Amino acid sequence: MKKIINTPERFIPEMLEGIYAAHPQELAHAGEDLHCLVNARKHAGKVGLATGGGSGHLPLFLGYVGDGMLDGCAIGDVFQSPSPEQMLAVTRAIDQGAGVLYIYGNYNGDIFNFDMAAEMADFEHDIRVESVVAGEDVASPAAQPGEPNRRRGVAGIFFVYKCAGAAAAAGLPLDEVKRVAEKACANVRTLGVALSSCTVPKVGRPSFEIADDEMEIGMGIHGEPGIRRGKLLSADEIVDEMAAPVLDDLPLKADDEVAVLINGLGGTPLEELYVMYRRLAHILQQRGIRVYHSYVGEYATSMEMAGASISLMRVDKELKGYLDAKADTPFFKQFGQ
Amino acid sequence: MKKIINTPERFIPEMLEGIYAAHPQELAHAGEDLHCLVNARKHAGKVGLATGGGSGHLPLFLGYVGDGMLDGCAIGDVFQSPSPEQMLAVTRAIDQGAGVLYIYGNYNGDIFNFDMAAEMADFEHDIRVESVVAGEDVASPAAQPGEPNRRRGVAGIFFVYKCAGAAAAAGLPLDEVKRVAEKACANVRTLGVALSSCTVPKVGRPSFEIADDEMEIGMGIHGEPGIRRGKLLSADEIVDEMAAPVLDDLPLKADDEVAVLINGLGGTPLEELYVMYRRLAHILQQRGIRVYHSYVGEYATSMEMAGASISLMRVDKELKGYLDAKADTPFFKQFGQ
Repeated sequence: MKKIINTPERFIPEMLEGIYAAHPQELAHAGEDLHCLVNARKHAGKVGLATGGGSGHLPLFLGYVGDGMLDGCAIGDVFQSPSPEQMLAVTRAIDQGAGVLYIYGNYNGDIFNFDMAAEMADFEHDIRVESVVAGEDVASPAAQPGEPNRRRGVAGIFFVYKCAGAAAAAGLPLDEVKRVAEKACANVRTLGVALSSCTVPKVGRPSFEIADDEMEIGMGIHGEPGIRRGKLLSADEIVDEMAAPVLDDLPLKADDEVAVLINGLGGTPLEELYVMYRRLAHILQQRGIRVYHSYVGEYATSMEMAGASISLMRVDKELKGYLDAKADTPFFKQFGQ
Repeated sequence: MKKIINTPERFIPEMLEGIYAAHPQELAHAGEDLHCLVNARKHAGKVGLATGGGSGHLPLFLGYVGDGMLDGCAIGDVFQSPSPEQMLAVTRAIDQGAGVLYIYGNYNGDIFNFDMAAEMADFEHDIRVESVVAGEDVASPAAQPGEPNRRRGVAGIFFVYKCAGAAAAAGLPLDEVKRVAEKACANVRTLGVALSSCTVPKVGRPSFEIADDEMEIGMGIHGEPGIRRGKLLSADEIVDEMAAPVLDDLPLKADDEVAVLINGLGGTPLEELYVMYRRLAHILQQRGIRVYHSYVGEYATSMEMAGASISLMRVDKELKGYLDAKADTPFFKQFGQ
């Protein structure tokens, strides 16, 4: 895969330099480390919301740092977790005495590092930190009762950021913001389809092989194995196959209301995402499920990977209110209602 | 190239069905033809702004229909001009007695059809129509004095929509909105680079061939020939080669102020666009050119084509005011200042 980069080693540091240069009013770094991003506009007294994870998924993760969403983000190299020290630097920069909530995707490296950062924040700096680990990919197995969530976190985390961010912006205390984040998590499900691999620059070859006439339903955003590999089907057949597990898992029933996200993985044109949306809207209509609001575009990518994911969040009055609230980040803007 | 579509024939109609389904409060169609899009929210008495062109460039063209930008858009099949009848339907739907301004890219098919639509609007419906043909790709030859503009219209038309849209939203009359659009056009320059071809679904094969280690500077968004084809260079080398003709053509000099657009052509990740932005910011700084505002992302694509373009618009107090104004379309949202 051809890339417009200088060297693999400088890819992420230079990307970050570009981001700060392009958004000087909106983003700042905590200390000297460019990997530790914070909202340049402070809002006194609010609960701090932080996320983090590997690079290569723009606008995830750092793109949602801004008013009405997240206060900070620690990012690592491509598909690599940031360090506990980086997470701690973000935590210290965004804490305003009301505590900090971590919201991040369910990957072992991130869990280990965020847990360590939370401990350091508590013991060394007396900052109360709570965590919500988002994992909603129905291609990965559901936890048995009593087990921790085993599902991967993918594009649906956008909804968790949006709702928790609005709750924090509204001045809710840490426990309440955490409750809202957990409620959003509990109501989100996602399933993806991959048509081509991306190439991690330092690796220099595609993360996986997939034939010119194949697709893989359920593949993760780092190339984790999916549910089924087979011949590339029509858009309608793909959406039918993707929607069913998402709808059945929640489960969604007639008269439920949902927010919809059709997310492009990077290499799939927006036109195709709307062809998918069309079919999904039909399916939801047939089942009597109402669409409250829809988002179509690139929200969580795997660099140049071709493919898409479908996320649905079941919404009630409270979550709809948080979805409607104003958000103003470099990568996501929404006028409040 | 793998595509998530049903059939090539149904690609654009189904895309449009998806767009209307996803944005019911924001977009409506003029009459029964889905190719004729209008802002669902009317603003009484304002000058109507219309654009149009082929499909395959989302968010261009239809994505900029909304408050503070365009009132309507006629779109054709992939890379095909819409018909004069479709443009006329849009014109009639958006005219509110203050006249209509067409702003579209400099392509022969579009010029022919928009001119015919303007004549029909005038003679048959007594609607005054003015036109601004945007063409700013420095890869195509500049016109000799007295000649019409020979340059292709590419991503820089976004700036023209933004400024003219803000002028119309502010209540300016048709002649003034046209003046603002022409002023924006006169101050915009763009140059692109292509790394891979897109595939038009009905054609079924790439629009052009390009080797795995090659790039083409200046290639148009439909695969029109560029300035130079050669080995893929580093990001900094590519930006250096792209920026020079853009800066020299305006020309830009120390203390000039610009708006910047780094536009992805569809298949190039956002991360890489920011690596490009970093270098461009350095170049502008070295030349003493100040950046007023930056836009980085996909604003005018060629479906899954890998590559990017750089657009610069020289701004003065008037254009900065229009850039700052609120815009609210399905694909572009900006809080007003």
